Amino acid sequence: MISTTELSEYFPIWKNLTSEQQNLLAESVMERSFVKGENIHGTGKSCLGLLIIKSGQLRTYMISDSGREVTLYHLYDREMCLFSASCIMQNVQFDVFIEAEKETVAFQIPALLYNKLMNESLPVAKYTNDLMATHFTDVMWLIEQILFKRIDQRLAWFLLEQTKNQDNDTLVMTHETIAQNLGSAREVVTRMLKYFQSEKWVSLGRGHIKIENKIHLQRLI
Amino acid sequence: MISTTELSEYFPIWKNLTSEQQNLLAESVMERSFVKGENIHGTGKSCLGLLIIKSGQLRTYMISDSGREVTLYHLYDREMCLFSASCIMQNVQFDVFIEAEKETVAFQIPALLYNKLMNESLPVAKYTNDLMATHFTDVMWLIEQILFKRIDQRLAWFLLEQTKNQDNDTLVMTHETIAQNLGSAREVVTRMLKYFQSEKWVSLGRGHIKIENKIHLQRLI
Repeated sequence: MISTTELSEYFPIWKNLTSEQQNLLAESVMERSFVKGENIHGTGKSCLGLLIIKSGQLRTYMISDSGREVTLYHLYDREMCLFSASCIMQNVQFDVFIEAEKETVAFQIPALLYNKLMNESLPVAKYTNDLMATHFTDVMWLIEQILFKRIDQRLAWFLLEQTKNQDNDTLVMTHETIAQNLGSAREVVTRMLKYFQSEKWVSLGRGHIKIENKIHLQRLI
Repeated sequence: MISTTELSEYFPIWKNLTSEQQNLLAESVMERSFVKGENIHGTGKSCLGLLIIKSGQLRTYMISDSGREVTLYHLYDREMCLFSASCIMQNVQFDVFIEAEKETVAFQIPALLYNKLMNESLPVAKYTNDLMATHFTDVMWLIEQILFKRIDQRLAWFLLEQTKNQDNDTLVMTHETIAQNLGSAREVVTRMLKYFQSEKWVSLGRGHIKIENKIHLQRLI
């Protein structure tokens, strides 16, 4: 059994639960470990429940019939993974895949228990709503980039172009300067660079960007 | 003041509200009319509140810097428009545009009142969650079609190809047959044809499809 002290530290609305609800959670939550690369959730799989990440990193993505993947968002320490319990959300009618990007340890809340809490606790319902809205925002951002701005393509092209005539793959340039070159905003470039980094296409340092996967950047263009 | 009888008919979780909450709504809800083509909500606009459609049709869409539009979903009679009150949802960090596609009459619930209800009523919080999940699903469907399947392109191509050598723009063919031709499922073709119809690119009849906007279908390809 997980200690209530530990749970209270990781479950963000713990103090808004009744003691009965807290006890139910403490009795039912389990600690789970996933190895790097492990498939946690996918089409047709059983309904795992909600995961709160103690340490590690998860990736949520879509996959096409031909095997092409698109990352929707990443989850880091202390974040909660909602869609591994999509079975209890009858209005969520789409499939996403979730995998452990790093060795990950997480608390697992059984789907049916979470469903019960969502149906009887206003704080849990509101928290779920906030999570949904956050992920909705992530996905809308992705659509916008892909459909309209193609800042991903333009950034990839810029990075490759700038390092073409160098004898190494490191570009010494601020995000601000890149943004100016692309006619975009610094925030947009920073966000996209972070996305590139999370996909391991680049690695970011102070004042420089190192290209780690040329082939993938070229594929974007 | 709108009669509570009328409100109870249109507000899906009316019976789950306290009589105090019902009275607050009855006092604050207003009836609004929008002419066809009217812009209801967009970036930087004031927070209109939630709309429940009595009659008419709304369209929710994104718009790029260069003016390109992508329809996210449509709202019909008795449906509730959530994102016209996005100001009260702090985790919704994206902009959508909403316009009246037809002459529309709607009940308008003030954003702050809805926020109050969401914060004190479990049924309202859960209902909001369901709406959010439904629209999330619409948007995920759209991404999937655009990114992976390109069934929109393939369907547009097929419709144009099949009617090319005819002296009219009507294709006499079942959705099932089209699906077989495209190596897709009937449900997918039907859903995409309905999307085409809502965009006024085609009109659908029993056993036939009439092309209404060749230029737009061609643009898809």
